[in-house]
Formats: sequence, structure tokens, C-alpha cells
Amino acid sequence: MRHLLSTRDLSRDEAIELLDIAEDMADVQLREVKKLPTLRGRTVVNLFFEDSTRTKVSFEAAAKRLSADVISFSAKGSSVSKGESLKDTAQTLAAIGADAVVIRHGSSGAPLVLAQSGWIDAGVLNAGDGTHEHPTQALLDAFTLRRRIHGSASRGRGLDGVRVTIVGDILHSRVARSNVWLLSTLGAEVNLVAPPTLLPVDLANWPVSVGYDLDDAIDAQPDAVMMLRIQLERMHAAFFPNSREYSRAWGLDDERFARLRADSIVMHPGPMNRGLEISSRAADSPQSSVLEQVANGVSVRMAALYLLLSGEKGE
Amino acid sequence: MRHLLSTRDLSRDEAIELLDIAEDMADVQLREVKKLPTLRGRTVVNLFFEDSTRTKVSFEAAAKRLSADVISFSAKGSSVSKGESLKDTAQTLAAIGADAVVIRHGSSGAPLVLAQSGWIDAGVLNAGDGTHEHPTQALLDAFTLRRRIHGSASRGRGLDGVRVTIVGDILHSRVARSNVWLLSTLGAEVNLVAPPTLLPVDLANWPVSVGYDLDDAIDAQPDAVMMLRIQLERMHAAFFPNSREYSRAWGLDDERFARLRADSIVMHPGPMNRGLEISSRAADSPQSSVLEQVANGVSVRMAALYLLLSGEKGE
Amino acid sequence: MRHLLSTRDLSRDEAIELLDIAEDMADVQLREVKKLPTLRGRTVVNLFFEDSTRTKVSFEAAAKRLSADVISFSAKGSSVSKGESLKDTAQTLAAIGADAVVIRHGSSGAPLVLAQSGWIDAGVLNAGDGTHEHPTQALLDAFTLRRRIHGSASRGRGLDGVRVTIVGDILHSRVARSNVWLLSTLGAEVNLVAPPTLLPVDLANWPVSVGYDLDDAIDAQPDAVMMLRIQLERMHAAFFPNSREYSRAWGLDDERFARLRADSIVMHPGPMNRGLEISSRAADSPQSSVLEQVANGVSVRMAALYLLLSGEKGE
Repeated sequence: MRHLLSTRDLSRDEAIELLDIAEDMADVQLREVKKLPTLRGRTVVNLFFEDSTRTKVSFEAAAKRLSADVISFSAKGSSVSKGESLKDTAQTLAAIGADAVVIRHGSSGAPLVLAQSGWIDAGVLNAGDGTHEHPTQALLDAFTLRRRIHGSASRGRGLDGVRVTIVGDILHSRVARSNVWLLSTLGAEVNLVAPPTLLPVDLANWPVSVGYDLDDAIDAQPDAVMMLRIQLERMHAAFFPNSREYSRAWGLDDERFARLRADSIVMHPGPMNRGLEISSRAADSPQSSVLEQVANGVSVRMAALYLLLSGEKGE
Repeated sequence: MRHLLSTRDLSRDEAIELLDIAEDMADVQLREVKKLPTLRGRTVVNLFFEDSTRTKVSFEAAAKRLSADVISFSAKGSSVSKGESLKDTAQTLAAIGADAVVIRHGSSGAPLVLAQSGWIDAGVLNAGDGTHEHPTQALLDAFTLRRRIHGSASRGRGLDGVRVTIVGDILHSRVARSNVWLLSTLGAEVNLVAPPTLLPVDLANWPVSVGYDLDDAIDAQPDAVMMLRIQLERMHAAFFPNSREYSRAWGLDDERFARLRADSIVMHPGPMNRGLEISSRAADSPQSSVLEQVANGVSVRMAALYLLLSGEKGE
Repeated sequence: MRHLLSTRDLSRDEAIELLDIAEDMADVQLREVKKLPTLRGRTVVNLFFEDSTRTKVSFEAAAKRLSADVISFSAKGSSVSKGESLKDTAQTLAAIGADAVVIRHGSSGAPLVLAQSGWIDAGVLNAGDGTHEHPTQALLDAFTLRRRIHGSASRGRGLDGVRVTIVGDILHSRVARSNVWLLSTLGAEVNLVAPPTLLPVDLANWPVSVGYDLDDAIDAQPDAVMMLRIQLERMHAAFFPNSREYSRAWGLDDERFARLRADSIVMHPGPMNRGLEISSRAADSPQSSVLEQVANGVSVRMAALYLLLSGEKGE
């Protein structure tokens, strides 16, 4: 694998290989051999044009456990937001010897531009670009689902027939997009539930079913419910006067949670707005995989860094 | 030791053990074997809700000398200041595999909450919480005093009979609180000197004597004088019109410094307001231990990290 | 070498030794033995009083490739800008065990003050001070020129007879100052081209020739043209109404670039204002050494850290 730009690009075999390597990484960490020498001498640059403490810290932890050096290249202000400056920044990173660039950018497609530009030879990992994709988030979600469902027999398997309902602001969610492509590639059946105004216009091309009523979706007893984070500033786009109203229609509250099967998995990419899109009872229940998702994020990112960097150079 | 939350909790034996390990750490650094493999593969997270360059850098240096990986988790803005967010932040840190969390927080008790919450399995080190405690500062102060007084015969000893005068804004000082408990646990006699308005109301429960006149305190010839940093924004609470007036009444100026015994130790937690609570002559004299305090801070924090992390997991 | 404060101090032999070591460092990186154990256990502190992503990242990469620990000591706000606070900051860094301090400061001479103060024992590397010097930038420029001109036969050589034209705001440029001294020490002939208002008053003491017409300077066919970055806020000092006017008179546009010899080297310290002081065609041409300069910056800074730190302590 040369870059990790989107899940839409990933074949089933590629995705399963990555998830299997993440299983190895998780095993290693469990055995308390926390630090692997695999990427010693390699330099991973965190190039974040948007703030994101969690994703950044997760990538940093992943890289350090593989013994890579991590350099943060803060890229705030307008001068580096423009296209030409992305070029100059990329070339600078190339020149200082970056082996991988983890990029988060407000513009959809920026990681692809970086990867295809020829400006830099490094592997490019998309850590979230605009409303486009957030592939490592989807991979950690798939990893989490696979472990919950198949347990120690996960290796080599996809998510065939698993029914996943994604709820909330699909339109603006790169997490949702990445999950839609990856989950369906892995054989899952994806159902989107959202207010019509928060669904994308090209939905006909997506491998999903769509619903407009959360209660119906709950009653259909999906294997997993993935609640998206409410972006409060986008509330008006859904014609809801306030977050309380939104929550009433689209939140996984205690009552809805209680109607789910006892083995239905409750997912959230975090950080959660407790009491809005998800109740604390749901978030903290054994059915919730919220913390597993975060933990698995490190394993999945270790796997991605490993696939992009190991064996590529030197011995 | 599971956590280091306050000095009030520490028994004399625990405190002396930590100081003795810090002696070992200081010895090792003197021999230029600066990097110990002790905490290789362990992850120390610096979780600072308040800015503090010095304490943060000191913990970072301590962790790196023990070969730990250090990750900074910046936690600014209101969203992570609320209780629930501390929970989510803690769980995130747990999930990415933090072995120790060094926390500075504006709210007294936040490190205790973190340690008792069950949200995270990591060792918690209080790097300053509100006006409550700053235990590693007190430990480095005690370490510095013990070395000054007992020299190479320090190991195993307390500070029995050592007379320490702490001067300034006791009311708002976590440094003072931590020192009061630790120094008295170690057998020292602590005298507080402050304007009445800057003393806490529950003083009757503290193991200290109290004075209201710095000149009297100086003339009593303490073994050590610890000047606290003036918080200029709290000047009004002491009914002083400006810092100059405050300094005249409560500063260790050249004249007062000259009246101290030649072997009286002058301490300050830094950063100093030179010319306000301490004159440059006093700060830069051989009697001053200001720089030793900073250097010893690294040794003491290495000892604390060692006690919390080594042997706890794996081999 | 004890410190690296300016290129004006450097003898020809010292400069060539440093450039030769940088050749070794570049070789090592080419062989993919990217991480050298040379500075293991040493602590390099990045003390930046001004923002500078590129220089900071370059020093960080250099230090990490030599296996040093890197600690960033952010020093913003007015309290640490004053002389006395530089003292306290320096003593803090000394106390935590800094072996080298990389300092960028808005005041010319601050690194010299730090090095001569006795406040700290560490090696001091000037990463840019006011309008004074930026020695590692000049060293990487000289390294780049030497490689372009002498190729694999560079070791041991200077830049005798090489004709370098530096264009732009010389008055405020520490890059220009450092280059003037170093290039002439190495035997190059330096020609400055600038509006009269952007030239220093003590120019008579500089080992340079001066011109006031960029077209004449281009037609003189220098071996290298170094374009300085336009500081837009200083435009008015040159009596130009706007950047477009300035660019017309002092920019290396496509037309001027076309008139250069095919082996003339085009240099820029970055970040570039494309379309102002340099056209994209010039910047991206094979004649441009802009990216080599950045890459060589890491090698040169590795060499400087090596010279200052290796063998100084311990084994």
C-alpha cells in the first residue's frame, strides 16, 4: 500500500489485510511488548490544518509504538491553506526526510492532491479531509465490529451480512462516508437514518438503504447503531430550532436504547455530546464500543503506518 | 505507589523512599548515564489544562530520561473543562494506552477525581490542581533542603527540627499547601508569614506556626526561607495598593537578606518576580537554592514516575 | 566548536570542517541509516521566541536523527522577552539538563548574551536573532552552492571565485548578513542588489559590491542569484506603493530568469512569495536549489549539533 487516502479505494482483500495486521498489533500490545522496532529511523509528520487532539494523539501513539520519530508540523493561518502553500509545505516535508505524512485538512481532496502531486515521496495518510473521508476512523470501526462479532476468529473475515445503521448528519460527515464504503466492501448492509436535509444529493450512487425515522430503524434491530456527532453549528440545516429538538428526533436516548437487542453494538466516533445524540446510559453500557473504538484506533493506525512504511525503503 | 496526588497523603516512609530514589536518579545523571531504559515502551501523557512551561518541561525531561514516550494532550477551551469531558478525555487516554497521566488542572481535586474514577488505569501525577496541592514541587523542595543540610548523608533521613519559614500568599498557593504537609511529615517546623488576608481560614488545623511580620520572622533566623511568587492579580486581596508596597512589607529585599544567617537557605519555586518578592542579590547568592530546586525537580519527577510505573506491568 | 552564534566569527577552516561533516551526514542519510546513536541521552531544547515552523522542524529532525531528545520550550508573551527573564529561562534550561539550546529571538544579540552569560553551560545555536544573523541558513546555502558547483569533489573546498548576487531587503535580512560573511570567508564574491533604502548604513565595512539595478545584475551573469523573501510590512520602507510595483523592479520574474545562464543557480531561503520576489517558473526550474536548501538544512544542522555536542561530555 502506497497511501491511505480513502476507504472507497480499498479492495476487500486490502481492507482485510489491514485489519488482520491491526489484530497483530493489538496482540503485541496485549503482551506488553509495547514498543516495536519496526519503524526505527523513520519520520512520521503530523500535518494538521485543523485541530484534532484525539486523532493526532492516536497517530502519535501509533507511530511511537513502532519506534518512529514523530514531528508535528502545525499549519495554521491562511498562508498555508492555499494550494500553492500546500505545495511548498509538502516539498519542505519531503526535503527534511518525512517518510509518512498524516494530513488533516479542511478541504476535501487535499490528501489526494498531496499524494498525486509528485511534491513528496512519502506515504500519505488521510486523517480527515473536509466532508470527504476519514479512512482510519472507518477502519477502526470495522475492526471493532469484527472483533465484537467474530471475536478471536476475526482474522481473514469480513462483515458479511452485518446490519449497521448510521444515524445523524450524513451530509457533512467524513466518518459516515468512509464507513459506508468500507462496511459495504466488507459485506455489511448499511442503513442511513437522517433528516432529509442532512443527506447527500448523490445518495442514489451509495450502496445503502435510507430511512427517515429513527424509531423505525431501532425497531428493525440492527446489529450495530453508529451515532454521529452533532455539529451544533449545522443544526439549522436540519430545520431544528435547537439541540433539544434535534435530540428528541435523532438521539439515541434511554428509551430507544432500551428497545435495542441486548447484543446490538452502540458505536460513536467521539467526542460525544452526551445527552444529545447519545445518552450516557447508552454510551457507558456494555453494548457501547466507544472506548474499544479509541483503543483499536491505535492498532489500526499502527497497521496503516506499517503497511505504508515497512519494507518500502532500506532493508 | 499507585498515584501521586498530594503530599498530605504521604507517610514519612513513603516520602523518604521517594527522596532516596531521587538521590539515585541524581547520581545517575551526574555519571552522565543520562538515559535509563527503565520506562521504555511506557507512555506518559502530559495533560495540562493550564499553561505551565516549566513544570511540563521538567516532567517531559524526566520521562524521556527514563526512555518513556511522552505525548502532550493539550486540553484548552471550555469543552474539556467540564466534568463529563474530563471523563471522556481520561477514557481516551486510557484507550490509547497511557501508563501515567501528569495532570495540571485549574480545579482543586481534579487529579483525585481522575485517580478514583475508574475511567483510567494509569498512574496519576498531580502537577498542580487549583489552590490545592503541587506535590512534586514540595518533594523537590524537601529534596533540596535535605541535600543542603545533610549532604551526602541524606539518604534515609527526614528534616527533623529544620525550621522553614514560608512567606507570601499562602491562601492561594498550592506550593505552600504541599510544602506544609510534606515538611511537617518529615519533621520540620514550618512557620507561615503572610498578611492576614492571605492566610487560609482553616489554619487551626495546619501543623504550623503563624506570624504576621516578616522582619520578626527573619530575626528568628530560620534554617530556610521560602518566598512564594506574588500573583499580581491577587494583590488587592492583601489590601496593598501596588506591588511596590507589597514588596516593602513582604519581600526578601537586600536588607532583610543581609540579616539572615550565612547558612540560611533561600528558596523560591520560580518563576521569580525579581525586585518584588525577592531581590536579585538574594536570588543569585550562594544561599539561594533556586536553580538546585529546578534541577532536583527532574530527579524527583523521575523518582515519582519510576515508583508509579516500574514493575507495575509486564516484567 | 562551543557555540554557533554567527558566521562572521567562523574561520574558513571551521566553516569547511562543518560543511564536510554535513557531507558525511548527508551520505549517512542517503544510505538509509537514518538514525545515528551519536547524541543518545543528550537533550536539545528548541527555545523559540518567534514562530518559525520550518527552522524549528529542521532542527528537530536533525536532533532526532542523531538520537537526541528534543524538548520544545515555547517562550511567548512579554514576560520572557525581557533580559532578566531570558536569564531565568536559561537557568531553568540549564537546571533540567539541556545540552544544547537552539534559540530564535527577536532581539539581535540574544544568542550571544545567552552564550556569554554563564547562565547555562549548554551549547548555543543561533536559529535567527533579530536582523543580525541566521548562521545555519548561510551554512546550508554555502553547502548547497558547493555541492552544485563541485559535486562529489566538494570536501575540503571553499567557494573561491564563485559570484553570488543577493537581491532584496538586505537591511532587515539576517539571512543576507550571515551569507555575506560566510560566502566571503569561503572566497566567494558577493554582490548585493537592493533599493538604496533597504541597504544597511555601514555597508562600507562589508566585503561586498553593491548594485541598484536588478537587470544589470542579471546581465552580469552571476553563478548564483539568491532572492530574499519580501517582508510585505516593510514594503513602505522601500517607497514602493505595493508589492506588484516592488516585484516589477526587484523580482526574479520569468523574463529575468530567462536571461540567466543555464547553469546559474537560483536560491531562496523560503518560504517563497511566488509571483512576488520569484516566479514559479524560476522557483521550480532545475536551476532552482530551493528544495536542496531545505534538505541540506537537516544535514548542516546535524553537523552543527555534532560539533557542539559530541565528545564534549561523557565518553
